[in-house]
Amino acid sequence: MRAIIVTEPGGPEVLSWSEVPDPQPGPGEVLVDVRATAVNRADLLQRQGHYPAPPGAPEYLGLECSGVITEVGSGVRDWAVGQQVCALLAGGGYAERVAVPVGQLLPVPEGVDLVDAAALPEVASTVWSNVVQVARLAAGETLLVHGGGSGIGTFAIQLGIALGASVVATARGAKHDRLRALGPVHLVDYREQDFVAEVRKVTAGGGADVILDIMGASYLGRNVAALAVDGRLVTIGMQGGRKGELDLGALLAKRGTLAATALRSRPPEQKAAIVSGVRDQVWPLIEAGRVRPVVDRRLPISEAAQAHRLVESNEHVGKVLLTVG
Amino acid sequence: MRAIIVTEPGGPEVLSWSEVPDPQPGPGEVLVDVRATAVNRADLLQRQGHYPAPPGAPEYLGLECSGVITEVGSGVRDWAVGQQVCALLAGGGYAERVAVPVGQLLPVPEGVDLVDAAALPEVASTVWSNVVQVARLAAGETLLVHGGGSGIGTFAIQLGIALGASVVATARGAKHDRLRALGPVHLVDYREQDFVAEVRKVTAGGGADVILDIMGASYLGRNVAALAVDGRLVTIGMQGGRKGELDLGALLAKRGTLAATALRSRPPEQKAAIVSGVRDQVWPLIEAGRVRPVVDRRLPISEAAQAHRLVESNEHVGKVLLTVG
Repeated sequence: MRAIIVTEPGGPEVLSWSEVPDPQPGPGEVLVDVRATAVNRADLLQRQGHYPAPPGAPEYLGLECSGVITEVGSGVRDWAVGQQVCALLAGGGYAERVAVPVGQLLPVPEGVDLVDAAALPEVASTVWSNVVQVARLAAGETLLVHGGGSGIGTFAIQLGIALGASVVATARGAKHDRLRALGPVHLVDYREQDFVAEVRKVTAGGGADVILDIMGASYLGRNVAALAVDGRLVTIGMQGGRKGELDLGALLAKRGTLAATALRSRPPEQKAAIVSGVRDQVWPLIEAGRVRPVVDRRLPISEAAQAHRLVESNEHVGKVLLTVG
Repeated sequence: MRAIIVTEPGGPEVLSWSEVPDPQPGPGEVLVDVRATAVNRADLLQRQGHYPAPPGAPEYLGLECSGVITEVGSGVRDWAVGQQVCALLAGGGYAERVAVPVGQLLPVPEGVDLVDAAALPEVASTVWSNVVQVARLAAGETLLVHGGGSGIGTFAIQLGIALGASVVATARGAKHDRLRALGPVHLVDYREQDFVAEVRKVTAGGGADVILDIMGASYLGRNVAALAVDGRLVTIGMQGGRKGELDLGALLAKRGTLAATALRSRPPEQKAAIVSGVRDQVWPLIEAGRVRPVVDRRLPISEAAQAHRLVESNEHVGKVLLTVG
């Protein structure tokens, strides 16, 4: 088969669509003929050599895909050849075929196109596991989403609204019109406005009950300042650096919680539990049309380099998909 | 009645056993004739003017007491005049009488002396709410307790053991013999040993699943280093300062959670939920003799200044009680 290989760590130009050995489904795995995959920010880091695949994972880029099952490994029940699926991957989505543990498979939700389904597994699993499982967002609470224009951000805005939360999101002003189409969300242009002041304004001074953060160190102090009493801050990215000053007194005055999590490093049993939760709690919202995949554009996988440049430019809204075949 | 008043913010000498107006039980409150109260570190801060009573709380020192109900306010069921109780207080325990919301009352556990019962409400509520409610310590996990010789520490060691955890505790060497009497605990002399290395040694490199911390900033980096994957760090004190550098990358590599909490500032409904959990889950362990109050000594309340000096010296093990009447 062909897969995108990284000829050496570097810029988008090191991505090459090349012939590689076919994967084989092990026990408890299925083989998926990939129809589409999606670009995640972690792929850019892996391309640069900063985020190697975890042990045992396929070496190629790609943390999610959609496609059709073409083979089932030993011990697999509930899944059959010919089924349309999407999947959360530890790697290997940028390829014609990939072997997937069944715990990471999801059916394509009713009403969603097979290609667009590749936009869902990573964002649905990341947002649900952090906002619901870790941070326990409840109806009536306020959710602050940083990077509201990203794949994660567009999904978190919609899931927050669907769960009955008030949603505030930061994004550059040029993206606001497209984000307003997702539902009632208070948008903050982080280059022009102070998100702490904006959150306080819309919560009558109360602050955000849950914050989904992608910036890390550069937002740490302001995120704690924006938290409500009993608030939960979850950091899933460190685009603003990893080391920052934490004022534990300020956190204690809020009785605040700060979690830093990652999906890819979780062991298969944790991934399976998350995927199962997503299927039970998020898929019905998608099938009811209350949460939908937000796709900026589709590019053929041979143009993966162009797709990486687009995501690096941060001018997209939602997911950038790569189609295969 | 008489109560300890703070004549002006300052050292132990500002504590004066003086005549003050009697409290009246409001709706949903009972009046308790105090038999004993206990010295908490927060009392030292309040005496110095750094930790004022929250709005609506009695202005006098004292976060817990034991005694006998002498009057019940309107709407009180389940509690009667003459009952021996202990109570979690927002203030006012250093007095002959105190009005207590019924949600913060606990029966004196069977087998515990009425005076010693004053050693229990604050530590049981603090330890249970943080170690069980917030950090969800599970059997088979490792709990690291800082300040193992304190009232909180001696209770956390015993509760951790009773819940089936492996317990590691830091304390100065002079206290180790008395702490060993509490059960199987790996003791670390923080002045001679590196607690990160010790935790790794006893967990085969795995780290502590839960850390109960009283130091704050000065231990922040080392606590994150000592955490296991999926570990939970709960800071309830800042004896080592409030501002420290947090390496979010290190926390994310552990998928770690950091919570900073306080009991006194919680609204009455949260306090009642905690007290109810303590009664259901901790009281049976005390009545079975698996967790016991650890009392360093009893002093008459007129010697409150001496008791404060003792707690400031940090040479006690467990609780210092003040007896009334």
